[in-house]
Amino acid sequence: MTPIPTQWVGPIAFTGELVEGEVSAPLATYETPLWPSTARGAGVSRHAGGIRVTLVDERMTRSILLRARDGAAATAAWRRIEARKDEIAAIVQGTSRFARLLELNRQIVGNLLYIRLECATGDASGHNMVTKAAEAVQSWVLGEYPELAYASISGNFCTDKKVSAVNGLLGRGKYVIAEMEIPGKLLRRMLRTTPEKMLALNIEKNLIGGSVAGSLRSANAHFANMLLAFYLATGQDAANIIEGSQGMVHVEPRGEDLYFSCTLPNLIVGTVGSGKGNPQVEAHLDALGCREPRDEGANARRLAGICAGVVLCGELSLMAAQTNPGELMRAHLQLERG
Amino acid sequence: MTPIPTQWVGPIAFTGELVEGEVSAPLATYETPLWPSTARGAGVSRHAGGIRVTLVDERMTRSILLRARDGAAATAAWRRIEARKDEIAAIVQGTSRFARLLELNRQIVGNLLYIRLECATGDASGHNMVTKAAEAVQSWVLGEYPELAYASISGNFCTDKKVSAVNGLLGRGKYVIAEMEIPGKLLRRMLRTTPEKMLALNIEKNLIGGSVAGSLRSANAHFANMLLAFYLATGQDAANIIEGSQGMVHVEPRGEDLYFSCTLPNLIVGTVGSGKGNPQVEAHLDALGCREPRDEGANARRLAGICAGVVLCGELSLMAAQTNPGELMRAHLQLERG
Amino acid sequence: MTPIPTQWVGPIAFTGELVEGEVSAPLATYETPLWPSTARGAGVSRHAGGIRVTLVDERMTRSILLRARDGAAATAAWRRIEARKDEIAAIVQGTSRFARLLELNRQIVGNLLYIRLECATGDASGHNMVTKAAEAVQSWVLGEYPELAYASISGNFCTDKKVSAVNGLLGRGKYVIAEMEIPGKLLRRMLRTTPEKMLALNIEKNLIGGSVAGSLRSANAHFANMLLAFYLATGQDAANIIEGSQGMVHVEPRGEDLYFSCTLPNLIVGTVGSGKGNPQVEAHLDALGCREPRDEGANARRLAGICAGVVLCGELSLMAAQTNPGELMRAHLQLERG
Amino acid sequence: MTPIPTQWVGPIAFTGELVEGEVSAPLATYETPLWPSTARGAGVSRHAGGIRVTLVDERMTRSILLRARDGAAATAAWRRIEARKDEIAAIVQGTSRFARLLELNRQIVGNLLYIRLECATGDASGHNMVTKAAEAVQSWVLGEYPELAYASISGNFCTDKKVSAVNGLLGRGKYVIAEMEIPGKLLRRMLRTTPEKMLALNIEKNLIGGSVAGSLRSANAHFANMLLAFYLATGQDAANIIEGSQGMVHVEPRGEDLYFSCTLPNLIVGTVGSGKGNPQVEAHLDALGCREPRDEGANARRLAGICAGVVLCGELSLMAAQTNPGELMRAHLQLERG
Repeated sequence: MTPIPTQWVGPIAFTGELVEGEVSAPLATYETPLWPSTARGAGVSRHAGGIRVTLVDERMTRSILLRARDGAAATAAWRRIEARKDEIAAIVQGTSRFARLLELNRQIVGNLLYIRLECATGDASGHNMVTKAAEAVQSWVLGEYPELAYASISGNFCTDKKVSAVNGLLGRGKYVIAEMEIPGKLLRRMLRTTPEKMLALNIEKNLIGGSVAGSLRSANAHFANMLLAFYLATGQDAANIIEGSQGMVHVEPRGEDLYFSCTLPNLIVGTVGSGKGNPQVEAHLDALGCREPRDEGANARRLAGICAGVVLCGELSLMAAQTNPGELMRAHLQLERG
Repeated sequence: MTPIPTQWVGPIAFTGELVEGEVSAPLATYETPLWPSTARGAGVSRHAGGIRVTLVDERMTRSILLRARDGAAATAAWRRIEARKDEIAAIVQGTSRFARLLELNRQIVGNLLYIRLECATGDASGHNMVTKAAEAVQSWVLGEYPELAYASISGNFCTDKKVSAVNGLLGRGKYVIAEMEIPGKLLRRMLRTTPEKMLALNIEKNLIGGSVAGSLRSANAHFANMLLAFYLATGQDAANIIEGSQGMVHVEPRGEDLYFSCTLPNLIVGTVGSGKGNPQVEAHLDALGCREPRDEGANARRLAGICAGVVLCGELSLMAAQTNPGELMRAHLQLERG
Repeated sequence: MTPIPTQWVGPIAFTGELVEGEVSAPLATYETPLWPSTARGAGVSRHAGGIRVTLVDERMTRSILLRARDGAAATAAWRRIEARKDEIAAIVQGTSRFARLLELNRQIVGNLLYIRLECATGDASGHNMVTKAAEAVQSWVLGEYPELAYASISGNFCTDKKVSAVNGLLGRGKYVIAEMEIPGKLLRRMLRTTPEKMLALNIEKNLIGGSVAGSLRSANAHFANMLLAFYLATGQDAANIIEGSQGMVHVEPRGEDLYFSCTLPNLIVGTVGSGKGNPQVEAHLDALGCREPRDEGANARRLAGICAGVVLCGELSLMAAQTNPGELMRAHLQLERG
Repeated sequence: MTPIPTQWVGPIAFTGELVEGEVSAPLATYETPLWPSTARGAGVSRHAGGIRVTLVDERMTRSILLRARDGAAATAAWRRIEARKDEIAAIVQGTSRFARLLELNRQIVGNLLYIRLECATGDASGHNMVTKAAEAVQSWVLGEYPELAYASISGNFCTDKKVSAVNGLLGRGKYVIAEMEIPGKLLRRMLRTTPEKMLALNIEKNLIGGSVAGSLRSANAHFANMLLAFYLATGQDAANIIEGSQGMVHVEPRGEDLYFSCTLPNLIVGTVGSGKGNPQVEAHLDALGCREPRDEGANARRLAGICAGVVLCGELSLMAAQTNPGELMRAHLQLERG
């Protein structure tokens, strides 16, 4: 076992359907300054009426890869396969109690056919569930369409743990928005900043700075830090922070106040499945209220909502610090000395 | 503490300047099928004469962000700053025993000036070292050039823990190539595949599949899994797997044999600094031979070399499995039953 | 009037539903070496049985942009709007004889709602048709949902004449595959190359070279040159070569022969609409057989098929030249001297 | 010849080193509403004191591609080649009166070595000049380093007429900033908009809308339209609008006024070379004052400055129109009726 330093941060105040009330969150990380920084954001959440979290979408994906004689044959085969979506849905359903087909997507490049299966996967993040479903679908396709040959069980059009645009555009994982309106007084007192400074920083650093760096569907300061720490503490496959990091901050000064939001299109989290058997992880999930008797998928959605709130807290705090010259380094030095 | 399941995998056979001989590596992960899979690749390395690891480059970066009246002023200021590179190098050197300025880069967007400092940072991955250097440089710039205003200590042109093209093109972390020539006989016997199948998979899945997914400077199956597990076990800031995952597999059939390579332009690892004080981590680094008395930076370079070898072992094994229909799922089921 | 040097190239041999038989194509360009180069590819097409062109998809898009109080409100509004797709389809249909709604897509970032309308647009490329439809839909949305405010008639999620991943993933313009199997003998005699050299070049230059350059859904040598010349000669809005250039070459050695394909997911062409009134353009379209009495959209599909064939001819020829040291420069010098 | 409708737009008022005073510009395009729209922006420039254009950088590039036994050999060869930069500079200089080597860059992927030559090319855009230089350098490298084999004269790491991040980050073409401070009164009267509306549109459409679309180093409304029209009218290779389109708008409300800027990192224009012999083009270049007796490169820089100003005029006008519901469509309908 490798022990990762872990601390509870919070409580964070939430509002909305996914999570309501105050919840503390465990963060497992070697980067321990993350704790006080996220805690500062949590403090703001408690004074500002809470972070509203909204679920836009959820699904898990796997893309099979098939090879035809040529693009004409690949396209013709795709049209026939697409028309049999109901049969494919039945195959998916037959592979698991929880997997349900939501959508089929395709890309065709020359003679290569990529079919992306999008599934609901209950409370699991669903990697293995969709792989099993994909294998069954691929076997069936190969049997029904002898003009197609096996190329790969995964064609990277899924795509798992890799930078992409597809996951944000077609969906993968839980798409969550966390947002909060922060009174100007609170902003000045607790975060030593102003709506104007936060707006300028978001434009100049996250949006334009990200753009010149050649980022892709990504405009934030450090979503990845919070995601890593929360994923590790809750038994997630933390390599999925890669797509998780591709999210956006959007802010709006509203008079004296600040609207602050974090949009996370690809949170890949679950409350059951691999990594969740670990007793420490179970204790964390219990304390988060994510192993209650609920509708299928509701525990995982709650977990995603809390995760998005944690990201907001950490992002808000670091961004505020960066609006002031010298503050970031001073904070680091104090923590190291402290 | 959150305990992450950890197992030693190997030994992996290495050849070349960075690492020579056999080394086992610790992998901390909830995804335990990664262990036997990577071990299979390690077995191939021992029979195929070892993995050659080569360091192409190393540096750590931070970009400061300044605001001018307009682009004409920003450009003029940049020209004057650039001409004083030696003074800036002295400032950087004054902030740490190990930091040395290597290069300055810039982007100018309208009236915004982004200056990217690239530094050598000894055996540390160097995040804090370059932040400290950047702060000193920024203070100096603001003093010397009153026409520039503070905008942010970090302008996302660095870029840390976020998807980008800049890190691969201008460099961040250690740029390492791991490669091995695998005899055809070994390929068939240990990996149940052929050079032709591996070539087709790399083209169709990693290169074209990655491209249709809208990836960016990334063509691999699952670099992220090995990076995460190795980073956690050795006390690294594992959020840096994001840039780490942006690497490429390139293969060439050579007669009956297969040339297989993993190029990792952004390995961000160190043997000193935050996360390294953990006793378990120290034990891992000791066992890896990465805390020996060596030239400055040599321990970290050795660690990067081992890391790249681990990535190659895991990538080779998964790719080989995916060339055969059904093999991936069977392996997972066996492990779960076993 | 600015006169652009124009020459007919071909005939190019076609096979398949979209185009059958031999067709010559006009290329308007200042880069006159493009003519003999594309003509060389056309010659190969006549000896190799013709280029097969396949249409995978067609649509034109525009995205409206709306602003809500917060993401919760934006998401709620989207759900209600999405459920009224039939009403929106009727609105679209009311704005033009040809526009038909195919699909609605959305992105939500904080309190911002982007709705992407995808429409069939008959024989027009459809820019203006979808803008008109989008305006009508947006007016209706603003009337029905007072919680949404106007932000822009176009939210760049369309996206027109700009680099993106969305156009390839969700579709914009005509998605065409052009492909041909070239006998080895022909390859050596007419193009002085081999299947192995062409495969290596495609991997090393288009796929990996493109990847290290930080390209996005793009792996080709010079699609843009042929697209520009064909678009100008046929009265298209040539700024759409930007999305047009984001296409892929895929090749496969097949014994002695070579399978060569160009996949063009975003050809934006029409046979009616702005730019088509020019008499020279009309003459070109007539000669291409693209102003015949045909089913709605069939003339534009034929035009897209011919365009894809032209791209293949030019790409094949340049790639073959680049497999041989010195050939490209020699060809240029000969043309300049000749 | 294909005649493209062309109109002079302006005069546009300029200030700064590159261009000073009023200049009208020819725009060749089938999209004729571009003329009045750009003219509106030109009108603003005359009342607002002129558009300031600044040159940040200029260079033209070509990347050769070489193949080694393995990455260790490729890396070793690169180190030796890099150390002989002076010899390479002499080779480059020997191929043309104007080509001068500025920089060498490299990427190494497995056993593949990409070397990017960056050159000054006088008043030519320089495509052919750098290809000739690259061929000479590649021949020399192959002679000196028999461990390297020819792979391609162009490895797509250049990169020409294709979407990339490399051209913006390492430079290709002329990097120009065009900017203007527009009094609030003028903004309301001539453009019917306000600083706040323009700021919101730039954030919501160009920056965030571009990001969700999966754009790459690109945040603008329609740079491509102006680039295409200006490139065609001045004999440029208009396929280079692809990299040209990858630019950014940045705006800042300043009290009642608006700072508006267009950053164009990749303008690829010249006043001599292919396409420039056309009499109509010569007349256009003459009228633009870009064929005067000046220092080497100064005519091309002036042309780039005018081009950037034209882009600003068109961008400003369209963005202003999009801040108001219905305005864009009304303008189109009026023009069509008119």
